[in-house]
Formats: sequence, structure tokens, C-alpha cells
Amino acid sequence: MKASHYTLSTLKETPADAEIASHQLLIRGGFIRKLASGIYNWMPMGLRVLQKIEAVIRDEMNASGAQEVLLPVVQPAALWQQSGRWQQYDDGLLLKFNDRHNRDFCFGPTHEEVITDFARTELKSHKQLPVNYYQIQTKFRDETRPRFGLMRAREFIMKDAYSFHIDDASLQTTYRLMYDTYCRILDRMQLDYRPVQADSGAIGGSASEEFHVLAESGEDLIAFSSESNYAANVETAEAIAPPRSTDAPQDLTEVETKGLGTIEEVSEFLHVAPQNTVKTLIVVGEETPLVALVLRGDHKLNPLKAEKLAAVATPLQMATDLEIKASIGCLPGSIGPIKVNIPVIVDHSALALANFICGANKDDYHLQNANWQRDCSIDSSSDLRVIQAGDPSPDGKGIIAFKRGIEVGHIFQLGDKYSKAMDATVLDKNGKAVVMQMGCYGMGVSRLVAAIIEQNNDDQGMIWPTALAPFQVLIIPINAHKSAEVAQVSETIYQQLLDLQIEVFLDDREGIRPGAKFADAELIGFPHRIVVGERGLKSGQVEYKTRREGENLELPVAEVSTYLKKVIDRELADSH
Amino acid sequence: MKASHYTLSTLKETPADAEIASHQLLIRGGFIRKLASGIYNWMPMGLRVLQKIEAVIRDEMNASGAQEVLLPVVQPAALWQQSGRWQQYDDGLLLKFNDRHNRDFCFGPTHEEVITDFARTELKSHKQLPVNYYQIQTKFRDETRPRFGLMRAREFIMKDAYSFHIDDASLQTTYRLMYDTYCRILDRMQLDYRPVQADSGAIGGSASEEFHVLAESGEDLIAFSSESNYAANVETAEAIAPPRSTDAPQDLTEVETKGLGTIEEVSEFLHVAPQNTVKTLIVVGEETPLVALVLRGDHKLNPLKAEKLAAVATPLQMATDLEIKASIGCLPGSIGPIKVNIPVIVDHSALALANFICGANKDDYHLQNANWQRDCSIDSSSDLRVIQAGDPSPDGKGIIAFKRGIEVGHIFQLGDKYSKAMDATVLDKNGKAVVMQMGCYGMGVSRLVAAIIEQNNDDQGMIWPTALAPFQVLIIPINAHKSAEVAQVSETIYQQLLDLQIEVFLDDREGIRPGAKFADAELIGFPHRIVVGERGLKSGQVEYKTRREGENLELPVAEVSTYLKKVIDRELADSH
Repeated sequence: MKASHYTLSTLKETPADAEIASHQLLIRGGFIRKLASGIYNWMPMGLRVLQKIEAVIRDEMNASGAQEVLLPVVQPAALWQQSGRWQQYDDGLLLKFNDRHNRDFCFGPTHEEVITDFARTELKSHKQLPVNYYQIQTKFRDETRPRFGLMRAREFIMKDAYSFHIDDASLQTTYRLMYDTYCRILDRMQLDYRPVQADSGAIGGSASEEFHVLAESGEDLIAFSSESNYAANVETAEAIAPPRSTDAPQDLTEVETKGLGTIEEVSEFLHVAPQNTVKTLIVVGEETPLVALVLRGDHKLNPLKAEKLAAVATPLQMATDLEIKASIGCLPGSIGPIKVNIPVIVDHSALALANFICGANKDDYHLQNANWQRDCSIDSSSDLRVIQAGDPSPDGKGIIAFKRGIEVGHIFQLGDKYSKAMDATVLDKNGKAVVMQMGCYGMGVSRLVAAIIEQNNDDQGMIWPTALAPFQVLIIPINAHKSAEVAQVSETIYQQLLDLQIEVFLDDREGIRPGAKFADAELIGFPHRIVVGERGLKSGQVEYKTRREGENLELPVAEVSTYLKKVIDRELADSH
Repeated sequence: MKASHYTLSTLKETPADAEIASHQLLIRGGFIRKLASGIYNWMPMGLRVLQKIEAVIRDEMNASGAQEVLLPVVQPAALWQQSGRWQQYDDGLLLKFNDRHNRDFCFGPTHEEVITDFARTELKSHKQLPVNYYQIQTKFRDETRPRFGLMRAREFIMKDAYSFHIDDASLQTTYRLMYDTYCRILDRMQLDYRPVQADSGAIGGSASEEFHVLAESGEDLIAFSSESNYAANVETAEAIAPPRSTDAPQDLTEVETKGLGTIEEVSEFLHVAPQNTVKTLIVVGEETPLVALVLRGDHKLNPLKAEKLAAVATPLQMATDLEIKASIGCLPGSIGPIKVNIPVIVDHSALALANFICGANKDDYHLQNANWQRDCSIDSSSDLRVIQAGDPSPDGKGIIAFKRGIEVGHIFQLGDKYSKAMDATVLDKNGKAVVMQMGCYGMGVSRLVAAIIEQNNDDQGMIWPTALAPFQVLIIPINAHKSAEVAQVSETIYQQLLDLQIEVFLDDREGIRPGAKFADAELIGFPHRIVVGERGLKSGQVEYKTRREGENLELPVAEVSTYLKKVIDRELADSH
């Protein structure tokens, strides 16, 4: 491709609304352009990368035995009503509209309903199972605050797959196969990523894992073990119960703590560490009006964990001061688990304490040397808190540290959540109708473009792996308008590379200074760059530079194409 | 691919709502499934064909120098308001909705606005021109009555391209290049098609041509010359002016025609052919309240032609009986062009008559031997009528006949319709801002799947050209469960063909009778079929049959793969 016939539209200025590297560089490099909030045009250069990523995904999905389909973007409400998600699906994310006959439809953000409807019609017998259908398709989620360019766009491209099974064992097998397939896909993209235990959120079902590309700009916080493969989204990471304190109980004492509102103030006043205090949070209950949740003073409540408790109402709702005062008789700053008149659920770490400080359920008073068995009637203990850096890893190996990640994939064991609600059955060996088990496997295709850039950039621009670069080689002729030889050698090398099936870009733009062409080269991130100049040609050489290593070599004109062919073939083989 | 790992979902029954062959066969063959009115799931088998068609289109578009982009599905109303189409675009076809912030958007049915917005931002100089951007993308048009399966679906896949030019000469060059590219694409699909002069409709602009695949089921009627390349949509085909009658004028006579309402009744009563009468239609005018349009008695008004007249209001509206009576003094059955008190526009064919019959502008009376020059004051003459079979071809060669066609492509010279409204300019050689000229080039990708079937089917099913078939070869083992040799030979041939990069499908389904497999083979239309049976194997032979010719051959097992490789390579070369 020659620049004179191509829309090479780079920008010097970083757009004001672009906060992270990938967003800035995709805009500056002329890969995408914003059309509306969270909605982007893919320009020729950007689309080439997107299509290469799609090709890798398609290749590995086909190799896994999955069958490609293409389901409609526009989905009838009736199916979403059957699954129960028409009202419930992540409030507001579902873009709904009416057609000309005033029937309800939505712009598909995901396709569980459509594929389950398809499967219940087309699949009749256990002999047709297992199957795994996938598609690569444009989706829409009406984010309140789209940002970070392709990272959290409203219109985006996703690979979604859905598998159907006669039983859980078969689901496990395909789930594992998809796990391996995702690893292969991300390996081929040369990404530094981690599979991470996750909450299955609005999609539902049981086990689920996310695939995170590690990057400072990631929106998710991930808890890692220092010594094992354990990794979990901080939102859901289990905090394990420490051993119970064996200290002998001391005398329970009431102390006045007037004017001390926070754990820190009370701890300081009483000369104890916040780790030896508990805080008691009052939330709305499912079976009783209120429920008390007790955590160690230095710990934070994890709302997802609290919501999973049967006794706690969903969504989680804190009691108001008025409700607390009316029910318990004091304000929130003085509540404690002892003799409180509502159900008490204690976090494992708080339960390990002895001789701790807690509120006295009397305004301006706390208790010292409280002990669970002696002083309290508790209803249950549970994991209620957010995991912290420095905690022991839940798998028993090493210590937890945090890193940030970009979620590029998510695999779920859905079980029968959709197939049961939508009555998707097949006949088993005995001719009995059985509800199918389902898995689902998402991958953010357009988001991957951004994630790859987050891991592959410097202050000059993007650094593409050869397998994913928009073009593999860039040729810059220096002042070709003044030197027929420069123009001719550039053209010759260009043709040689084309003949070798190498994707080459010739920057033959007139009236653009060499400096500007070099800047564009770095910005766009062509992996291999050849500069043809008069000076070098005098000794029959051109200048060769790689974008990643930045090393400069002089190459004899006659050897350029064979040299590049060898290097590129090896690079492409490495990413297979 | 093996059937045991594939969703092969054929139906014996023709679906009740499927009227044409392609719709019936796509459903029966398990290529698509209806999700909602005019909205279809693409099943694995169907998607393979769709992707092959996309690949041919992409290949030829790239070869033409066009650059692939991908524009958003969801488009902001603001752009459509700038172009003036937000209210005007083919009433109701535009699917509109609001996002969560209550901003207006639509589901893109076409992308003139988005690409013009893109071009006005990215293109600054005449040096960047000409450019031609294309995309292959899902679109939505909210048809009142979707039908014929993929032929008139609401959600569909389209290739749309948009070119930008410094002047009309450059637009002409690219338009011609696209014309040739469309011919190459349709040639490669081995279609019997015709480029046809067309009306540019809601898209606007000047010249435009449609590409029609000829088929009885086509929704469009096309006028062809018996002796030249002339072809035009009947909606827009010009009717040429016949030579004027040289008969000497006879005396004008008034005759009573009480109770005779139609041209046929009047002609019969007066013993003249309808060809020697005129009918006068009263329509709403642009500058005057009413206008009279005069046609020969046997001709039909073409509303598109009438609407193009400056004197006639758009959209075309017939005057009511009351308006006619009030203004002219008689009812519609007795109107004529002579001494009528409103502007008169006469169709060329009516103008050629002498001594004709017309209404007398007096209820129950007609005039005989009317003559234009002597009796009438006319305002202009024009081509007003629908062309008819038997008319002379407008290019002067041969006679017009009609055929039905499926519109699969449409190319337009838009001129400055969008670029002017949206202020899309570049600087010319002298540094002056110039409004760009535009072309646009659509092709119905999913509709092509249907069109190909309309031209390639018989009462057994579809007949795919090898280059577009979902799989090139089908292997059917006969009773493999009873014969290890049949199973093993089938598997060997299967592997040999895979190794030769041939797309082969092995029907290894258990519990399905051979007859049912044969029926599926014909229905799906695999171009090459190999049947492996015990009887043939005794003499080392398998049965080979082509779907199109239906010829049966015995092939030695050892030669099957090399024979097929040779045949298929030749077929694929033919469609390049």
C-alpha cells in the first residue's frame, strides 16, 4: 500500500478527552475516530489490526471445534421477558426501542436468549451435543459514562460463544477447552495476562473466570498470590478465616467515648490498634427489618459478599440513622454486637478476635474486652470483607498483592439458568427430556486492540507485534522528489516485498518532511522500518530499524527483502 | 467437517410463510432461521456461504483501490438533521431510538451522513483525493412488510462504498471503475445479471445504475432492448417520442357519450382504437392549484416522471372529483385538453396523434377529430408514461421486452448533495475551498445469497457454484456401522481431501438412513458427492456425482482425491 493512495490521518495533539495511552494513540495514529460518545469509526489502519485479531480468534475457535454463526443485532423483547432479564439486565445498559409496529426490541448487548431460543428449536437429541456456537459481532451497551476509547465504548465488537451439554461433566470439559483456547489466543497476541476467578454478575450461573491483560490503566483490581497461580478479582476474592485468638478473656468494661465518631478516634483514645476493634454495620434484612454485619475495625465490607447472604436484602441497603436509633436506641457510631436486638452476622476475621473494643449500643459509650462466646449471641459467621494486600492467599500459598487488569475475556458455567427459564431440552439416551447445561464465553475484540496497545507503547507511539501490525514493513524514501535513485530503489524494494507476500507500506507522500514521516512511523508503530536515502545508496545500503528494539542496521539493498522475509516469517511462526 | 460435530438442521416441510425458492431452501437447508419478522439467525452452513461472498467482494474492492473501514451501526440524529434526511428518509424505514440520556439516534440503514462527516474532518487537500471507502456491515431498514426471507429482510448485510472527488471528471472515473468492479464481482459468482439504468430515489444525486440478477421471483420489472445492451428499470425507462401523425385534420365534432366512463367504453362506442384517444389526468400543481397531464388512452402515467416536472407538486397527488368539478366544470370522465382553464402538459406519444378523441370538459360529451395545433393551447410536452413491452428501445435499437430482476447492487453519482449540505470541502491547487463530489456504491451481501439460489436450484434443492458452496465435497458412507471397510475408506478419502485443502463434509451421522442423507445432499447442494458403499468397494470403486450436471461416475478409490483436486482447482480458477 502506498501512502499517496491511503488515508493516513495522524494528529500531533493528544485529544483532550483521551486519558489513557491506547485511547490517545488510537486517535493520534488515525486508527479510530469518535462519532459520538462511546461510538467510533474504524479507519483503514485500525480496521486492519481489528481484522487480524478477529482472524486469530476465529482460527483458535474453529480449532476448538466451535461452529461460527451470526445472530441478529436486533432482538425481540419476548425472549428477554422469558429469561427474566428484560427489566433486570444491568439497569439501563440495555438499549431498547420500538419498531414501526410498536413492538419492543433491543440492540443486543449479549446473546444468551437468542442462542437458547435457537438451541431449543434445533437441538432435539443428546446425540447432537455437545455443541459450541460462536460469533464475532457488533454489540451495544448503553454505558452511563463511556470512556477510555475502545476500553469502555458503547458500540463494540465482541466474540461470544455459547455451549450446550447433556450434563455438567460435558460442560466442564468444554469450559476447560475454552479456558485453554483463551490462553492460546492471548498467547498468540503475546500478551501478559492472567486468568482470574470472578463473580458471574448479571449473566448468572456458577463458576466463572475472567482473563485480564495486566496494565496500570486497567479498571479492575486483581488479587494475586505471591507464590501460586491464585488470582481473583478483588470484588470477589475470598478472605480466609484467621486462627482464633487464644487470649484469656478479660473483664468487660464500659468507657465513655463522647465525641469520638470513627474507629481511628476510638482506637487512639483507648490506645489499641484498629485491628482489635470491631465495627457494626446495620443493613436492611430479607427476613427481619434490620441485620447487623460485624467486621474488624480496619476491614472494609464487600457488598457482593453481603448480598449473597440469605438474611440480607438485595440490593444491599444501609439502614438510616433514624431506623437505627428507633430500633437499637443509639446512633451508628456506638453500635456493637453485644445484646443488640437484631440478627448478628460476624466476619471471619472479626470472629477471631478476643478482648476487642466495640460500641455499647448506647450513645457515646464503647465496651472494652468484649469476647464473642462470653458476651455475644451471634447468628452466623461469614466472609464479609474485601480482601487486602498482605492477606494470606486463599489457596494457602503465599501472600496477596494487587495488580490492575483489563478484562478482555470472561468464561462462565451458566448451568441451567437460561435453558430452564426458556425450556431448552433434548431427549437423553432413555428418551427423557432433559434441560441442557450451558456455558458462555465472551471476548472483547475491539477492547483487545486497546489492551494490546496498553502493553505495547512508549512515548513515541504504538509498538505492534508483527502478527497484529497494520503493516509489517514501512519504507520511507528520503527526498524522493530530488533523487530518482531513491525513488526507484524504494519502489523496487516495495515490489519485492509485495511479491514475498509481506504487508508493506510505502510512505511516498509529497510535501511531508522526513522528520514528520519518522514521527508517524513511530506513532503508528510499524514493526520494521526501511529508510532509503541518497547517502546510504552511495555505498549500496539502506537503513533498517525495528520499532521495538530500536536497533539500527545498515542493509545492502540487494539483501533487504530476503532478510526481512526471514525475520518476519520467524516472528509470525512465533505467534502461532 | 464431520456431521457428527456439526449442526446439520434440515427440514422436510416448506415453511408456510416462504413464497420463493431461496427463502424456502435457505430455511429447509438449515442456512438461516427466522428470529422475528425480517430478522434471521445465520446458521453455520449459511454463514460459510455468506463469508465466501464477502471474501469475493472484499477481494475485488481492494483490487479497485478502495479502503475498507467500519462505521458505527448507531448513528447520531444530528448528522441526519444536517443532511435533511432525519424527517425525510423513506418514511418509517429509519429505526429511531433514544439513548439513556434521551439523545436521538438511529440504527444505520446507510452511511452517507457518517462518511461525509468523516471525510470533512480527515480530508483537507485535493492531494488526498480521490478516495473510496467501503465497509461490509449489518444494517437495518424497518420495512412495513418484510418478506421473501433474505430478499427483503429488515436486518441485512450490505457492502457500501463512498468515494470523494475534487471534480466531476474524477467522480466519473471512479464510478466507471465501480461499474467494472461490480461486473467482476457478479461474474465471479457466475450470475446472469444486467446493469440497469435507474432512478436514484431517496439517496439522491444524478446518474445511477442498478445491478439486477435476472429471476422470475425478482421484485423489479426491467425493460430490455431486443437488440442492444439497453436495460432500465421500468419505473424510470424513458419512452421515446414517436413521429407525429401527418394525417390532415378533420372537422372537430362534439358527441354525446352519456354513461360511458372509461377509455374502453368511449373507444368502442365511437369505433376507434384506444390508441387514438387521449386521457387527461388532473393533479395538484406546484405553481397553480391544478395541472392537466395528457396521455394516450392506452398508456399509463409514470408517477416518478410526473413528479420530476417543476409544475407538478411532489409527492404526486391526484385532484379530487370535487376540485375538478369546481375548477373545470365537469367530472373526470369528460375532461380534455381543449380550452381547459389550467396548464396542460402532454406526453410525447399523445402529442404524436392527429384527429384524436378527448373529453369535451362538459359532462357526458367527448370531442372527435381533435388536433393539437389547431384546437389546443398546450404548455409543454414531456415523457410522462410508463414504458410498455413492444415499445421501441430508447437507444434506437430494437424493441422493448420485460424481465424480472433482483436488485443486488446500486451505484450512484451523488455529486454534491451531501457534501454541500454538510460543508465537506478540501483545498484545491490554488488553496481555495471546494465542495467535494461524491459517489456511492451499494451491494446487498445477504441478498446475494438469496439471488444466487434463485438462479441455482431445482426441485431437489440448491445447486452451489463450487466457489461459493458451504463445502465443496460431500462424502456419504453407506451403512458404515455395518462395514468397517466403508467407514475406513470414507475416513481415508476425507483425510486426503483435507490434506489437499479441499473443504469436505463427511456425513457420519448415525441412525439416519442413506435415503435421508441423499435428500439432504441434494437440498444443501454440495457440488461434488462421493458415496462409499460395500458393493462398489468390492471392485475398488466409489460413486461420484456432481450436483449440477447430475452425472454419475465410478471412481477408483485411489484416484478420488487427485481427481477431485483437479476438478475443483479448475472450477475455482474459473471464478477468478
